[in-house]
Amino acid sequence: MRKPVAQPTAVRYAALPDPFRLWKGGELRRAQVAYECWGTLNKERSNAILLFTGLSPSAHAASSPASTEPGWWEKMIGPGRAIDTEQYFVMCVNSLGSCFGSTGPASVNPATGKAYRLDFPELAVEDIARAGFEAARTLGIEQLDTVVGPSLGGMVVVAFAAAVPGGARRAVSISGSSASSPFAIALRSVQREAVMSDPAWNKGQYSDNERGPQSGMRIARKLGTITYRSSVEWAGRFARQGITPVGKRAVEQALKRVPEGFGPRFAVETYLEAQAEKFVHVFDPNCYLYLSRAMDCFDIAAHGTAEEVYRRAGFTHALVVGVQSDFLFGIEEQRQIAADMTAAGIHTRFAELSSVEGHDAFLVDLPRFDAAIRGFLAG
Amino acid sequence: MRKPVAQPTAVRYAALPDPFRLWKGGELRRAQVAYECWGTLNKERSNAILLFTGLSPSAHAASSPASTEPGWWEKMIGPGRAIDTEQYFVMCVNSLGSCFGSTGPASVNPATGKAYRLDFPELAVEDIARAGFEAARTLGIEQLDTVVGPSLGGMVVVAFAAAVPGGARRAVSISGSSASSPFAIALRSVQREAVMSDPAWNKGQYSDNERGPQSGMRIARKLGTITYRSSVEWAGRFARQGITPVGKRAVEQALKRVPEGFGPRFAVETYLEAQAEKFVHVFDPNCYLYLSRAMDCFDIAAHGTAEEVYRRAGFTHALVVGVQSDFLFGIEEQRQIAADMTAAGIHTRFAELSSVEGHDAFLVDLPRFDAAIRGFLAG
Repeated sequence: MRKPVAQPTAVRYAALPDPFRLWKGGELRRAQVAYECWGTLNKERSNAILLFTGLSPSAHAASSPASTEPGWWEKMIGPGRAIDTEQYFVMCVNSLGSCFGSTGPASVNPATGKAYRLDFPELAVEDIARAGFEAARTLGIEQLDTVVGPSLGGMVVVAFAAAVPGGARRAVSISGSSASSPFAIALRSVQREAVMSDPAWNKGQYSDNERGPQSGMRIARKLGTITYRSSVEWAGRFARQGITPVGKRAVEQALKRVPEGFGPRFAVETYLEAQAEKFVHVFDPNCYLYLSRAMDCFDIAAHGTAEEVYRRAGFTHALVVGVQSDFLFGIEEQRQIAADMTAAGIHTRFAELSSVEGHDAFLVDLPRFDAAIRGFLAG
Repeated sequence: MRKPVAQPTAVRYAALPDPFRLWKGGELRRAQVAYECWGTLNKERSNAILLFTGLSPSAHAASSPASTEPGWWEKMIGPGRAIDTEQYFVMCVNSLGSCFGSTGPASVNPATGKAYRLDFPELAVEDIARAGFEAARTLGIEQLDTVVGPSLGGMVVVAFAAAVPGGARRAVSISGSSASSPFAIALRSVQREAVMSDPAWNKGQYSDNERGPQSGMRIARKLGTITYRSSVEWAGRFARQGITPVGKRAVEQALKRVPEGFGPRFAVETYLEAQAEKFVHVFDPNCYLYLSRAMDCFDIAAHGTAEEVYRRAGFTHALVVGVQSDFLFGIEEQRQIAADMTAAGIHTRFAELSSVEGHDAFLVDLPRFDAAIRGFLAG
């Protein structure tokens, strides 16, 4: 529904099997997955790494000659980098249900010629996993060397184990979850409520010209931003500084929206405002609701015990990365994933990182993540 | 602005000095503080404990023959209880700026005959402290035995040290703060934004008949409820249970507000819904905004170094209580308060409690709090 973002030319599209049946029972016709690639697929098609994203990014994980803007994991992917494109063929997919080229609630329903909106069938994390794998299959890849994902992507890696047995030899799950905790569910339910309470949401029928529930999306994104970081990081980074020039335009607008004296006063509010401003102009609200709800509902237990799921998955090696300061996808959840994989006979490394950046550490604390992932991939 | 809650007959009112000058520069005319009392004031008027509350409660901390409904700290106050009314005269005040009988934005401005709303002058935590003390003075109490408060009340106790030097011999600060952290500021700013983004807020000019920004207040309270508890507690308490009969009516209403499939599905959402429902019908939205902003802006540094403030305060003994699982008013903040008091020569006990109930533990984990407070008051 958002104004289409100028797609970097590196984006390619994979047609999904038609119909594409969803885990919760619905189906999609003529669905597609947007992806980008780096490196070269070898003759045996055995060196592919499939990368899933967090809730909000596109498939643009790194720059390339065709698309020079830095990607969301720019410093992790490339020649000689932790995910080394001289050795691996790397493919990052935009999640099914998202709005950066993959089919989602903002896409046109071929049956009606209009956007799906709330007619989009219920999405599950399993569908994101399977759609990503089907995208790889369109390139002739029948088994991935490694499937990787942080945040929602870490959850997708767990879902991949259940939904695509034998689909990968190795797995890297970063700050994910094998079943959303009630705390994370509570936070996400409040975020969705903020969007749905905004009268401009209009039960999903907002207008196409960017005038959607921006106010609700702003609240949802600010709350997200809070849960992606940590109290300790912010104490050092912002302390009690007053408004800073960062995000000045966003703050000026925020000040206009409320009576004098009720707007932002602190640097941390400036930061939230700038983060929200970036988000509301690119992310479709209905897509946000579908992806958020899918995360709440994900539970590996729907597929049997975790040990059974991981035995069927067929991974030989796995890396589970958790961050001590992550209070959204807690370290104990990561420890559990590692323990379950180990119990299933997978050679599993558990990297417990002491980064202060919370859930978002994988985007920020690159030295620690580089070392963990580089070491694992090197075997 | 809310329908006036039937005031328990135990509530009494203290007139504040007129005018009552506020820390940020404004003043109030004919202002008052609502309070309740338990126990008997001795002849020397030296056995008084002044209790401040968290953000949302009234002065009804405990029941009494005149008001038999259980109070918000019922099990802590009474004959033989941790705050022993056979020994102490206990007085709990409704915070200045709140809406349960004390003067606040929902009160009538004597200059206009209409509710203040956003014409209420900016409120500071220092004003809550001083208004509480002035209420005690109306009973002839010139120095308290002990000043006590949890949450916002714990912050008020710190503000009391700065604003009322010599006003108490002992202090008990529970899960408070001597300067709001950027993390807490971020959370509260999102809560206020939810209220102010609700079109029914109408820049503070909502109608008087309960049709205020209920949707925004519901979001704010749910987010508050999340930050008052802990992930660990909820993992044990709710896990991934589906909707339960608790708060059934609130959930039915929530389901009506959104399209099918987008309402609550999990027990934890049921709980949030019930908590929000209780709150929105009793708490005035403008009062909420004023108190929330006052918390953000509180910083003991405005009065000098913490050590100087505590030296001037004149406390001989202090108890600082913190909860390890509290992520809103973190344990390190409590440790800092205790360290600052100790540095100022106050005999200070620091009780670091391992309760799993987070910030709200003082309302729930009564055995641990009872022991800490009983032990301190016994001396």
